[in-house]
Amino acid sequence: MRCRFVRRLFGTAGIRGRYPDEINPQLIAEVSASIATFFKARKCALGGDGRLTTPILKHSATVGLASVGVDVIDVSLTPLPVLAWSTSKLKCDCGVYITASHNPPQYNGLKAFRGDGMELLEDDEVRVEEIYFSRSWSSVEWFKVGHVEIVPYVVDEYVAELTSRLTPKEVKLKPKVLIDLANGAASLATPKVLEGLGAHVITLNANIDGRFPGRSPEPRSDVLKPFLPVAKSLGVDVFLAHDGDGDRLAVLSPNLGFIKQDRVIALLAKYVLSVRKGSVVVSIDVGNAVKDVVESLGGKLIVVKLGLTHEGLVKHGDVVMTAEPWKFIDPSWGPWVDGIYKASLIVKLMIEEGKNIDKLMEGIPNYPQARISVEVPKHLREYVYEALQNKLLEGGRGISEVITIDGLRVNYLDGSWMLIRKSGTEPKIRIYGESLTFNELKKRVDDLIVVVDKVLKDRGVHEFKVEGEVLP
Amino acid sequence: MRCRFVRRLFGTAGIRGRYPDEINPQLIAEVSASIATFFKARKCALGGDGRLTTPILKHSATVGLASVGVDVIDVSLTPLPVLAWSTSKLKCDCGVYITASHNPPQYNGLKAFRGDGMELLEDDEVRVEEIYFSRSWSSVEWFKVGHVEIVPYVVDEYVAELTSRLTPKEVKLKPKVLIDLANGAASLATPKVLEGLGAHVITLNANIDGRFPGRSPEPRSDVLKPFLPVAKSLGVDVFLAHDGDGDRLAVLSPNLGFIKQDRVIALLAKYVLSVRKGSVVVSIDVGNAVKDVVESLGGKLIVVKLGLTHEGLVKHGDVVMTAEPWKFIDPSWGPWVDGIYKASLIVKLMIEEGKNIDKLMEGIPNYPQARISVEVPKHLREYVYEALQNKLLEGGRGISEVITIDGLRVNYLDGSWMLIRKSGTEPKIRIYGESLTFNELKKRVDDLIVVVDKVLKDRGVHEFKVEGEVLP
Amino acid sequence: MRCRFVRRLFGTAGIRGRYPDEINPQLIAEVSASIATFFKARKCALGGDGRLTTPILKHSATVGLASVGVDVIDVSLTPLPVLAWSTSKLKCDCGVYITASHNPPQYNGLKAFRGDGMELLEDDEVRVEEIYFSRSWSSVEWFKVGHVEIVPYVVDEYVAELTSRLTPKEVKLKPKVLIDLANGAASLATPKVLEGLGAHVITLNANIDGRFPGRSPEPRSDVLKPFLPVAKSLGVDVFLAHDGDGDRLAVLSPNLGFIKQDRVIALLAKYVLSVRKGSVVVSIDVGNAVKDVVESLGGKLIVVKLGLTHEGLVKHGDVVMTAEPWKFIDPSWGPWVDGIYKASLIVKLMIEEGKNIDKLMEGIPNYPQARISVEVPKHLREYVYEALQNKLLEGGRGISEVITIDGLRVNYLDGSWMLIRKSGTEPKIRIYGESLTFNELKKRVDDLIVVVDKVLKDRGVHEFKVEGEVLP
Amino acid sequence: MRCRFVRRLFGTAGIRGRYPDEINPQLIAEVSASIATFFKARKCALGGDGRLTTPILKHSATVGLASVGVDVIDVSLTPLPVLAWSTSKLKCDCGVYITASHNPPQYNGLKAFRGDGMELLEDDEVRVEEIYFSRSWSSVEWFKVGHVEIVPYVVDEYVAELTSRLTPKEVKLKPKVLIDLANGAASLATPKVLEGLGAHVITLNANIDGRFPGRSPEPRSDVLKPFLPVAKSLGVDVFLAHDGDGDRLAVLSPNLGFIKQDRVIALLAKYVLSVRKGSVVVSIDVGNAVKDVVESLGGKLIVVKLGLTHEGLVKHGDVVMTAEPWKFIDPSWGPWVDGIYKASLIVKLMIEEGKNIDKLMEGIPNYPQARISVEVPKHLREYVYEALQNKLLEGGRGISEVITIDGLRVNYLDGSWMLIRKSGTEPKIRIYGESLTFNELKKRVDDLIVVVDKVLKDRGVHEFKVEGEVLP
Repeated sequence: MRCRFVRRLFGTAGIRGRYPDEINPQLIAEVSASIATFFKARKCALGGDGRLTTPILKHSATVGLASVGVDVIDVSLTPLPVLAWSTSKLKCDCGVYITASHNPPQYNGLKAFRGDGMELLEDDEVRVEEIYFSRSWSSVEWFKVGHVEIVPYVVDEYVAELTSRLTPKEVKLKPKVLIDLANGAASLATPKVLEGLGAHVITLNANIDGRFPGRSPEPRSDVLKPFLPVAKSLGVDVFLAHDGDGDRLAVLSPNLGFIKQDRVIALLAKYVLSVRKGSVVVSIDVGNAVKDVVESLGGKLIVVKLGLTHEGLVKHGDVVMTAEPWKFIDPSWGPWVDGIYKASLIVKLMIEEGKNIDKLMEGIPNYPQARISVEVPKHLREYVYEALQNKLLEGGRGISEVITIDGLRVNYLDGSWMLIRKSGTEPKIRIYGESLTFNELKKRVDDLIVVVDKVLKDRGVHEFKVEGEVLP
Repeated sequence: MRCRFVRRLFGTAGIRGRYPDEINPQLIAEVSASIATFFKARKCALGGDGRLTTPILKHSATVGLASVGVDVIDVSLTPLPVLAWSTSKLKCDCGVYITASHNPPQYNGLKAFRGDGMELLEDDEVRVEEIYFSRSWSSVEWFKVGHVEIVPYVVDEYVAELTSRLTPKEVKLKPKVLIDLANGAASLATPKVLEGLGAHVITLNANIDGRFPGRSPEPRSDVLKPFLPVAKSLGVDVFLAHDGDGDRLAVLSPNLGFIKQDRVIALLAKYVLSVRKGSVVVSIDVGNAVKDVVESLGGKLIVVKLGLTHEGLVKHGDVVMTAEPWKFIDPSWGPWVDGIYKASLIVKLMIEEGKNIDKLMEGIPNYPQARISVEVPKHLREYVYEALQNKLLEGGRGISEVITIDGLRVNYLDGSWMLIRKSGTEPKIRIYGESLTFNELKKRVDDLIVVVDKVLKDRGVHEFKVEGEVLP
Repeated sequence: MRCRFVRRLFGTAGIRGRYPDEINPQLIAEVSASIATFFKARKCALGGDGRLTTPILKHSATVGLASVGVDVIDVSLTPLPVLAWSTSKLKCDCGVYITASHNPPQYNGLKAFRGDGMELLEDDEVRVEEIYFSRSWSSVEWFKVGHVEIVPYVVDEYVAELTSRLTPKEVKLKPKVLIDLANGAASLATPKVLEGLGAHVITLNANIDGRFPGRSPEPRSDVLKPFLPVAKSLGVDVFLAHDGDGDRLAVLSPNLGFIKQDRVIALLAKYVLSVRKGSVVVSIDVGNAVKDVVESLGGKLIVVKLGLTHEGLVKHGDVVMTAEPWKFIDPSWGPWVDGIYKASLIVKLMIEEGKNIDKLMEGIPNYPQARISVEVPKHLREYVYEALQNKLLEGGRGISEVITIDGLRVNYLDGSWMLIRKSGTEPKIRIYGESLTFNELKKRVDDLIVVVDKVLKDRGVHEFKVEGEVLP
Repeated sequence: MRCRFVRRLFGTAGIRGRYPDEINPQLIAEVSASIATFFKARKCALGGDGRLTTPILKHSATVGLASVGVDVIDVSLTPLPVLAWSTSKLKCDCGVYITASHNPPQYNGLKAFRGDGMELLEDDEVRVEEIYFSRSWSSVEWFKVGHVEIVPYVVDEYVAELTSRLTPKEVKLKPKVLIDLANGAASLATPKVLEGLGAHVITLNANIDGRFPGRSPEPRSDVLKPFLPVAKSLGVDVFLAHDGDGDRLAVLSPNLGFIKQDRVIALLAKYVLSVRKGSVVVSIDVGNAVKDVVESLGGKLIVVKLGLTHEGLVKHGDVVMTAEPWKFIDPSWGPWVDGIYKASLIVKLMIEEGKNIDKLMEGIPNYPQARISVEVPKHLREYVYEALQNKLLEGGRGISEVITIDGLRVNYLDGSWMLIRKSGTEPKIRIYGESLTFNELKKRVDDLIVVVDKVLKDRGVHEFKVEGEVLP
């Protein structure tokens, strides 16, 4: 178990911060050296997103890796899934990708991968941090310094392999697809794969630009809403949107708008379980749509902490997919989160079944859902959390199950559930839930907000921020 | 003077055809060798657009150039204006660019440039053809074969230099710009320049893809119309659209739609003449909006054949700009058609004047305009043309001027005019014209169509195709 | 069986000629397309030597290959064995290498390889020629044209793999090695491997230069003789010399001079057979030193035509090595002629056994040997050859065996032998032989020269050129 | 004036030390950032020699430069003079070259150049050190980080320009030249230039290898002596030898051996002063051969400290060349030390005058010369130096001049001289001198050694090391 009092380097998804105050060349060089030391690596794949500081930090990572004797395979500018794929394809011992994912352009950071393309496990991270903070990476002598190879073609090879793998069995529709690339590196891959599968692809913001001029690189509902009329006016069959480095994908209907991530996961689970039987690993905040679909198809649902779904692949034997909101892994393709693969799979289904996204989603349950953030003063967060815990547990009569893997989740006899969770990165408490009716869910959320309000008022705080929404 | 009976290689804008039947590696190698021989070149810049056959044809051009002893500077994938700029910037003796401009994806071809970046003059083309058809290019011995340098950075240098050159003097607006890149190489340049000038840029079809999946690479009114609601729904200040290689630019208003090319030329002339006095060279089909603006600002208007506006730079001493529909040259920037510069100049004006495109166009005259194509059987074209000629000249009373530079243009005393012209590439006759009122113009066009109809009917042809539109 | 009357493209070792008269870009493009068509290839490795015309011809080969839909992996400037190795390593369907081997600098040409790195078989060549002369290579449509990847790192990977494979088991000597690289591409590989094995390496002519300024790229005895005092004055343990592209290797002793190729082959056979038992394939002109060693070690000797030893690997099951003068294949490393491997193996033996080249050769038999060329007028060659044949066969009493695989070889009861053979590339007759004493051999050769003299005189020719030498 | 008590970074020729203890990636990054900050640079040329640690340190330099907002032009692997030339040619604001010159392979370091290609002046170094030690380089924000361009062709351009510049006016000899490249990057340039001028070039150790397998990279007399028989046996007209990065050149006669650097300088001065009149700047240890030649040709000799000859170009107006042993600057070519130019100039003279090196040196005076190093315990060096000073000054009767620019130099009335100097990098005292006769010189040196011996014995030290030689 990780000790929470030591200094930390890795957040919920890699290392991130502002350049140059938090993330700078020296840090990246030393972390890269630590990662390579941990893996006793001889060969490491290195890539990065389209941010303006990514090239300099890739040079730093190169220095760090080569200084401990590791040969560097620099796969140039690629989306994140392509780096993970390359790590495995090129038989590297580990992979390093410079990115701050969907953070603003002044941020940057690093994600690290095992030789098979899987992101570091939590234990790996702890050990890398030990090496880093103790400065015990293994510098080598002058004649053992690593070499560098620049290999700019892996994106094309990834596109070819993925296209060939997902070729539709039959073509019932040439779907018109609008995809927003977030000015990110996925511009080099996703449109080509979708075209290759047989779609008519129109792109938004496919010019790679580390300033993210087109829109925020985070594909949130509110960020994408302004582009919905675009999708509608073009009459497309689906509107897809990536984050800055292509591991995430949002799915929108030109008619119905943003589709809940749970339902997208359920759709993917439906497909995956139709091909292979086994377990589906999801994070604790995933809702009943997934549960319904998985169970109806004879699959087993395994629930884990947020950010650790990939660990499920290591710990459980028969996992056929993992997912958390935004992020999807199909281990038969590779053990990494791959938004390009996710987009391609959805388009493949549209082509094979001859359906636009609305029809494709038919039959996937749609429950009212809350995803709320409450921002409270740091020093009061524990009090608030405890009060919320008590509130949730008091109404014990309808409770069927209490889960404490990650925060507190209470499942009710009627299938509804509520989850509270302290954010890993911000002074916030997250409230998630589903109910059978919108009103019931709204009431449950309101009850919890009242609790927050009371605790804070008792301690002299009269205002606090509530974000997010309750969706019908 | 070019003899019209010899076999021709060059069309109105370079060499173009279908791959591999009309355009193939051997042709490109031999034409490149001929061009280099004509220029007695020692160094040639080589570039190309994003078509799927461009890389192989660039290899062919390399072979052709090197085989006659020319060093090749391969500037990699760039938009056409960047190749022209590089030719001049890198002090090359000539430039070769592989492109079929806005033709469909199965086409490809070649454009050639003088050392200063200007496209070949008509006389140059004739002499290159002589070399080509007589196979008299100058192969060299083994130890004089040319070298190849791959220089992938010129796009960035072009972006930097253009951005710096056009930096707005003041910022009254951060315009929101939608730009459609036609899946072409201008994706690498135009968005960055516009951002650099201070615009908020959203892109359509900026993923470079030689299949042109997003839309036809020709930025015609009808091709772009489906995207107008996109511009409207995003609430942008202007909607711009390139062709496949970035020499052309269409300008659209989200509210008013496609803006006539004449009026865009007039806007540019207004700006250019505010900075420098001198002559403005335009093609014969350019309308009165330009005339009005140029004359009101004390400029001189010079009218030349279509496709040869750049020759005006050589023949006249004080030219401050040249233009024909789509194509714009500002010789103070460089003697090549540059759609990226054109886009940047318009956005600069919006920023400095604090106006969206509608307000910017206010004050630029807007005359009803016809741009019509009549397709007639090849063997009857001369009869039809002659009849049209007679028809136009018969109404001699209101005629102020008859111009025969390129086809037959009749100017009337009230300022209106009609032009007929045989197409250089297709079995068509073009009819252009402007009048003071829409109805008058429509009538004039109809009268001509009647003439066509009669000539054809007399010869047993009862159907023919009429394309284009009369705009109010 | 190949028909000798059709036009031929391939000589005894690939295609060669003067640039640009015999070998030019178009020929190379078309031959490359023919090769790829023959192999139904999807991926082809492409490399070339350091000649001045190699880059342009590599561009041509790229055009030819891509035009038939083949993806090209351009491994840049490498010695020939590295291209063969890459073809296999990178899982290509075939390989093309631009070279004229040891010909003068105004020559160039092409060698082709199967997917496993073996040179074309004779039958393959015939079929490629059929495709070439019938112009029936398979051009593809615009969207199927092949892609090009430039991969400049294979030399380093080859060096690393070969060094690791041949690491000496023990180190009894750090031999001082002088190696002459013939200004060729092997400069990038052989010195590093020898250093890596543990030798002290001094190089001559390791600056890559397609004009071959240092010496003729053919490592003949007379070419290398002027450098023997260099080896002697530096006190090296062995003096090695490559040809221009690194498939050939000459071995010299600073004290004893040029070592007969037969004896070098015998040394290699001694090593190979000590590791693996099986057959040794040699060309018809290889002498008794090899026979003695192979038979004494229980190996089987298979004799084939000159230039076709690699075919032995296909036709015989248990071949452990093949060799002809200069050329050595160890199939456990790969089925290509590899002078770098040959050099490395000899140096490895020196290190492990603690011996300089003189000591290493001790125990390898050394027979008097003749290698003579007689140049006769083309139209008289058949007469001369027939007379020589009669002369050889007349002395029937001591003959033990007559072999007609390639020319006429007569083995005598005492182990001596004579071989006459018409050259495949020049109007010459070759005379080879070995005897127990130098004088007997000299007499046998003189007897044959007398025959030649007589035939020619009878037909009015009083002078002819005799080259080569009889070595004691 | 530089304060001698502060920590120093720069030695007599850049920064050097062992990797990774003294020279490591972080140091190089920070020094590079300091250099760029000092120059307020926007663009910096970056190159490096063939050492194994040079690539990683180039990545570090890139990080340092880009982090302060400087665009990096990476000219790849080149000899040092080519980097200096590129700095000027590519209009950079400064240049950085990773090298440890002729030090052993485990060393590395950095040399820095002004925008015109001149090495830093002493004052520049002091100011860079101030920035470095105060850590006051100017890191920039995320959107101002520098870009990197890799430009691998400058060596070829340098070769072409230098060859064209030095083309012989007439050809009286095609000299046979043996050149030893020290396994360094000059292998890419010098042989091609010499060939281009018309020489027949044979190379030693032209395989680039950072381990320097062929010989020590320092072209000292004792290092090169073993190769003299090579030169002799090949019958060459001159034997040249570079150091590891190509700024230095040794000149040897196959018959007469190592030619004193003073005489080579005198030869160059003779040529330069025949073309242009002006001053010749030399270091304090340069002998009378130079003085004689310069004065006889009407030039002016300016004597400066060792390592600072290039400063003479800045301080004096009419300098036509500068030189110190090994190092030569012809400002009409460029203000950097250029061993490639030096080699080319000598070969040009041989070709034009039709003379081998022996004949070319005829007429250049040849005085007996001493170049001795005495190694003494650090704490006693001052005592020894003082005693030597006294000894030199005591014999005042024949003294014509006492110079204290750098150590103590005493000139005598008969033209002879002695110089003592404390080494800048080692605990040694250098003794230099010339006399009219060998015996007199030997006696003077012996007298000084006796002084050293006495001082040390008095302080209990009975042994000390004397290196170097007195040459007749």
